[in-house]
Amino acid sequence: MILLFTDFGEGGFYTGQMRALLAERAPGVPVIDLMHDAPAYAPGCASYLLAALTPAMPKGATIVAVVDPGVGGPRRPIVVRADGRQFVGPDNGLFELVMRRARDVSCESIEWRPKVLSATFHGRDLFAPVAASLAKGTVEDCTLRPVEPLRFPRWPDDLPAVIYIDGYGNLITGLRAATLPPGTRVGLGGAALQRARTFGDVPSGVLMWYENSIGLIEIAVNKGNAARLLSASIGTEVKLET
Amino acid sequence: MILLFTDFGEGGFYTGQMRALLAERAPGVPVIDLMHDAPAYAPGCASYLLAALTPAMPKGATIVAVVDPGVGGPRRPIVVRADGRQFVGPDNGLFELVMRRARDVSCESIEWRPKVLSATFHGRDLFAPVAASLAKGTVEDCTLRPVEPLRFPRWPDDLPAVIYIDGYGNLITGLRAATLPPGTRVGLGGAALQRARTFGDVPSGVLMWYENSIGLIEIAVNKGNAARLLSASIGTEVKLET
Amino acid sequence: MILLFTDFGEGGFYTGQMRALLAERAPGVPVIDLMHDAPAYAPGCASYLLAALTPAMPKGATIVAVVDPGVGGPRRPIVVRADGRQFVGPDNGLFELVMRRARDVSCESIEWRPKVLSATFHGRDLFAPVAASLAKGTVEDCTLRPVEPLRFPRWPDDLPAVIYIDGYGNLITGLRAATLPPGTRVGLGGAALQRARTFGDVPSGVLMWYENSIGLIEIAVNKGNAARLLSASIGTEVKLET
Repeated sequence: MILLFTDFGEGGFYTGQMRALLAERAPGVPVIDLMHDAPAYAPGCASYLLAALTPAMPKGATIVAVVDPGVGGPRRPIVVRADGRQFVGPDNGLFELVMRRARDVSCESIEWRPKVLSATFHGRDLFAPVAASLAKGTVEDCTLRPVEPLRFPRWPDDLPAVIYIDGYGNLITGLRAATLPPGTRVGLGGAALQRARTFGDVPSGVLMWYENSIGLIEIAVNKGNAARLLSASIGTEVKLET
Repeated sequence: MILLFTDFGEGGFYTGQMRALLAERAPGVPVIDLMHDAPAYAPGCASYLLAALTPAMPKGATIVAVVDPGVGGPRRPIVVRADGRQFVGPDNGLFELVMRRARDVSCESIEWRPKVLSATFHGRDLFAPVAASLAKGTVEDCTLRPVEPLRFPRWPDDLPAVIYIDGYGNLITGLRAATLPPGTRVGLGGAALQRARTFGDVPSGVLMWYENSIGLIEIAVNKGNAARLLSASIGTEVKLET
Repeated sequence: MILLFTDFGEGGFYTGQMRALLAERAPGVPVIDLMHDAPAYAPGCASYLLAALTPAMPKGATIVAVVDPGVGGPRRPIVVRADGRQFVGPDNGLFELVMRRARDVSCESIEWRPKVLSATFHGRDLFAPVAASLAKGTVEDCTLRPVEPLRFPRWPDDLPAVIYIDGYGNLITGLRAATLPPGTRVGLGGAALQRARTFGDVPSGVLMWYENSIGLIEIAVNKGNAARLLSASIGTEVKLET
């Protein structure tokens, strides 16, 4: 299985061109659009989201992850192998949290280059062909070389900020609920947030926070739009008080 | 074939996680994103849309339908079998119109629970696994029990309101054109609407109504945006005069 | 392989119904959503985009292309065969640039009609079934008749205008970079644009133009939104000075 995680947006021809190439190069391999509205230009935020999504991905899966503002520049293309899954994408921090949370990690630089490599769309020209080879088990088609990836030791293990806003306006943070000390209060923009288990636990229009379906702290309004109500956006800080 | 009908929105990782699970559990079964912008939080409106879409779905299809503001609360998860198709989702009225228009209907409660059941994403944790079993014909994997679903006898057979706005700004109503008495005038917000067969029947910028491709009365502007022109939204009332 | 290119938008049930039909009629044939936000109501602009996307499509591919404001009117449904690929859609100029740039072109009118043909959704009722037959090689299922398609000789070979705006706000023009005389300056709305190879070649927030991944001149702002910065939209003129 190949999963696509990008900031290309829902529209456009970028993901379609990647899927057309994958259908040609890896026929019969299921290709899943995991998400295409990952935080744009922000490999840091995206890294927390990708790491939270990883445990539910099947072992053996190949993930093409592209949040890559440095495309065409000196940043390296890499393959990261972590606990039985393989990730393909830029060496820019996007895989930092996946690597930090895995027990068994290795990294290789992609030395192979296609005959034609555009300066702005390595997702199609470089990462997708490598993912096809990895998924088919014919990785000898592309030359890989063991390297040490860039690491970002100053990034916290959990990020107290909004990293994604979903279609309902729910605010997903980079904080894992399981790591939160008991009794911690969660706040955003001065608003008091009560803890809930699910939306219907509070009346319509009331703010709450809860552990979401990928283990992260999420802020929402029952039947409302928390992003609009709190004027929050990607990067808005979350306050924790113990 | 498994069809997905949700209000999750086009973005996000919700549908991707469902498709990844279905690709694992029901390999080889085609999974089709029917729509993911069904009226949010509104199983009532969505019920009219789902019922209008149903006749064109292949017999034998399994439909996962999730418009489920009560997720994680006391509402029951159910399987509805109607005229050779099987629907999986919440017992909240979403299937009311499908059931009302079918000749052969039965309903079962989903008693099976997965090892891990999030409070907010039963689409992935509960409905998708059951759909995989139904599509594969291995329904013995999940325990079902015959029940009477909630019914909503006060809901009209046809809903005189906007139930969906498409990407062009066309207003789809809950009214089946075939049930409209001849000579009925259709209005919205005081605007006079002439009947047409297709967009080009009226000059650019002119309002019209017509029977759309799923049999519903739809209001549009040739090469324009009816939703903006009429300031209409989901729930806006449609006036019928005979 | 069947590729879908439409202006239906990302939301809605239109593409889902097409995919459900294709999965039924052409089981096992990969169906790729190439893009669904082609310029709405604008077969002219869309023609330049489709032609730029065509070279990267596999030979043998069947492309269903629907930008069709005249649906249900007198415009003909056609099949265009060009350099080993087959296109299905309306005879309204959408294939003009594909035909003009191909060496080997033929065109047929679709005489076959389905039992039920809606007035507004030929993508589902007419074009998709024909595409399924073409992809399966059972074209005898649908009656085709050689015709001369409408041609648009006054359209330029390259269009100096914005034809698409992607999710980042990048402005894609109808100008092929390879046809631009050396030294030509590219401008839009009075703004001076420097040529770059990729985004990171200029500081954050700076405007540039470059040859994009499908060979077209594209205008962007490094880590910014060019459409907003320049108040540009589909059709905005691009100035070339030599």
